[in-house]
Amino acid sequence: MQENRIATVKPVEESQATGKVAEIFADIKRTKNIDFVPNLWRVLATNPVQLELVWTTLKTLMHPEAISRKSSLDATTREIIALAVSATNGCAYCVNSHTAALRKQGFSTDALGEVLAIASLFNMTNALADGYQVEPDVLPPLE
Amino acid sequence: MQENRIATVKPVEESQATGKVAEIFADIKRTKNIDFVPNLWRVLATNPVQLELVWTTLKTLMHPEAISRKSSLDATTREIIALAVSATNGCAYCVNSHTAALRKQGFSTDALGEVLAIASLFNMTNALADGYQVEPDVLPPLE
Amino acid sequence: MQENRIATVKPVEESQATGKVAEIFADIKRTKNIDFVPNLWRVLATNPVQLELVWTTLKTLMHPEAISRKSSLDATTREIIALAVSATNGCAYCVNSHTAALRKQGFSTDALGEVLAIASLFNMTNALADGYQVEPDVLPPLE
Amino acid sequence: MQENRIATVKPVEESQATGKVAEIFADIKRTKNIDFVPNLWRVLATNPVQLELVWTTLKTLMHPEAISRKSSLDATTREIIALAVSATNGCAYCVNSHTAALRKQGFSTDALGEVLAIASLFNMTNALADGYQVEPDVLPPLE
Amino acid sequence: MQENRIATVKPVEESQATGKVAEIFADIKRTKNIDFVPNLWRVLATNPVQLELVWTTLKTLMHPEAISRKSSLDATTREIIALAVSATNGCAYCVNSHTAALRKQGFSTDALGEVLAIASLFNMTNALADGYQVEPDVLPPLE
Amino acid sequence: MQENRIATVKPVEESQATGKVAEIFADIKRTKNIDFVPNLWRVLATNPVQLELVWTTLKTLMHPEAISRKSSLDATTREIIALAVSATNGCAYCVNSHTAALRKQGFSTDALGEVLAIASLFNMTNALADGYQVEPDVLPPLE
Repeated sequence: MQENRIATVKPVEESQATGKVAEIFADIKRTKNIDFVPNLWRVLATNPVQLELVWTTLKTLMHPEAISRKSSLDATTREIIALAVSATNGCAYCVNSHTAALRKQGFSTDALGEVLAIASLFNMTNALADGYQVEPDVLPPLE
Repeated sequence: MQENRIATVKPVEESQATGKVAEIFADIKRTKNIDFVPNLWRVLATNPVQLELVWTTLKTLMHPEAISRKSSLDATTREIIALAVSATNGCAYCVNSHTAALRKQGFSTDALGEVLAIASLFNMTNALADGYQVEPDVLPPLE
Repeated sequence: MQENRIATVKPVEESQATGKVAEIFADIKRTKNIDFVPNLWRVLATNPVQLELVWTTLKTLMHPEAISRKSSLDATTREIIALAVSATNGCAYCVNSHTAALRKQGFSTDALGEVLAIASLFNMTNALADGYQVEPDVLPPLE
Repeated sequence: MQENRIATVKPVEESQATGKVAEIFADIKRTKNIDFVPNLWRVLATNPVQLELVWTTLKTLMHPEAISRKSSLDATTREIIALAVSATNGCAYCVNSHTAALRKQGFSTDALGEVLAIASLFNMTNALADGYQVEPDVLPPLE
Repeated sequence: MQENRIATVKPVEESQATGKVAEIFADIKRTKNIDFVPNLWRVLATNPVQLELVWTTLKTLMHPEAISRKSSLDATTREIIALAVSATNGCAYCVNSHTAALRKQGFSTDALGEVLAIASLFNMTNALADGYQVEPDVLPPLE
Repeated sequence: MQENRIATVKPVEESQATGKVAEIFADIKRTKNIDFVPNLWRVLATNPVQLELVWTTLKTLMHPEAISRKSSLDATTREIIALAVSATNGCAYCVNSHTAALRKQGFSTDALGEVLAIASLFNMTNALADGYQVEPDVLPPLE
């Protein structure tokens, strides 16, 4: 695969990570059950404080079982949200990453299509609601 | 509730809808099992062609059972995508509407919090991946 | 109309404008053929350098006849672009302002609907192209 | 041209399309008067329901003459909206595609420059209006 | 001030906060040197896990002195980034909040104008770079 | 470096610039103290009116010393705003360009990390504030 985007900083090589960074790299591989550290984390490692903040947040929210937290959402739903947001923002790295995660969970091409179809539908209706400045409905109370 | 946004067109009153528009209004209420036509649809009714296109798309994708289509996603997951996209775009009307739909499906405050926490996490990582111009991972092939 | 957004700075009153700001206020009213200075310009007047830069850019691009410039686009098409961008960004002030400008030029509710329908369609397809990471077509050369 | 984005699904080859998908592919080529199926449509074909929804919406709004619909906007204005939205969202595939469409309609480099200049101007003013939280003007009524 | 947006969940009252939430509320007031808990935090408190994650991240990055961390940026620069991002996203709550923070730090109307002018300029150039699909410069190496 | 984006217009070569365009190219190199004209400006030169408007705005706001204007912000803070906006919009050309400018000013990898960490944090909180529709705080008056 040709690459035309060059990260603006030099990612930290796994073999050169030490201390806290090495610990987090190991935790990422163990928690995500993968045998390499994805580029985003190697880039964030250039700023260890930020690496730890983002990893703690992502581990807590996306891998609740790893910290014995009970989540209201299942693993697939969590990745679906990630993909819908990434498609909406047009973030290429993120779309690739979350599509791969969904496929790894057994997501079919058809299911992927449903997610993107629905995400794109609401990008359409968002533009309509904002473009017409539609007033919120005064909804009947929900019990 | 005070309103400060005034739709830029006059929404069509349900009592004044005729022909195709009246049919779609009835279909919206029947399909969504509600007893009023939300403001977005009353605004779109000022352009009946667009009303039909958006309703057909939304009915097909969000209410597949109404057309005997089999969807790969359940109703709650579909609304979760809608909310994640709307929060990402900052569309107030849409956030209100999809939060109400999730609550109607029995969604708890805690589950709502998980959806917004995850959507906001990926707005953070999207900005990091784009801000560092992170190169896509060359992923091992998935079977 | 109820207001719930309060500009974060105090807009400059027309009666209190002096010097360069007063000149630009007068030019805005003359060029746009209106008898008041819209709030955006009164807010920008708190920073006269920025007021002049934005007004010069907007006058050159949106009111080319005022500086005897020949534009490739007509006045309505120019406002259509403004509305499409504002709907996409969900900017309430801007949507109100450009809808009013189009109506002043005689734009019908139906034509307004076409603009928003098309703008929303491409917000949908943008999310699809980005969400699937569609490769650009290698197009046959255009003469 | 080097490519570095790889669609996250395998696009459907024209020669392998059958049934409804083959019909839509033929309709796309006939309606757009082109001799190939652009990648977006080949990708959407992995989800035929979505392919039909998007094509129906796009054909109705962008090729009204093909269904004997009368549009309030001409073909060039419609493509201008598409480009303005795509530039605002930063969607590379879409910018390429709609720039090509405008050039095919005879659009000059100068006219293209006007569209992008105006689209970019309103991205600037949108950020100003939102950044200062400018209150909507209470506009004099339009007759 | 009139309000037209109603949080989609009931914010937690300070007087009703207990345990971890009460501790974080106290820490927010102490760290920010304010005598009330802003609405965003009272809303996040409906999901204590998320409250803690966001507060930890924000405290670490925006109040480094509170944890004896040495930041490369001063407090004003940090708030400037917050405002520039919020204006770009059109987030009303956030614009209000970060404008207030800058004013509290002694920021003048003129300096506020510079920030918004520059943020809006780059929203303009972003749309141009994306709208023309400008190729990255091959920059001479920096030592 | 491989390139996969091809500007949609042919950039003007420095050696072929004449008149006003040549003057602006010279001013860009002199003002920015660089020995080449970046691609964005060579692309904008296909529309000289727009080239002049954008350059005048950028020179006034980003290089105030060149016109003996007194700015409330220093050069580094100005580039930080540019990068934060570009990361938020996901504009690759702009991220590359402003990262290079910050490095040229002596910005460290650590400081770059702080900027992106803070920009990404507020993309997260923006999504939370909008996703919960948080009501603005009624702030105590600031003196």
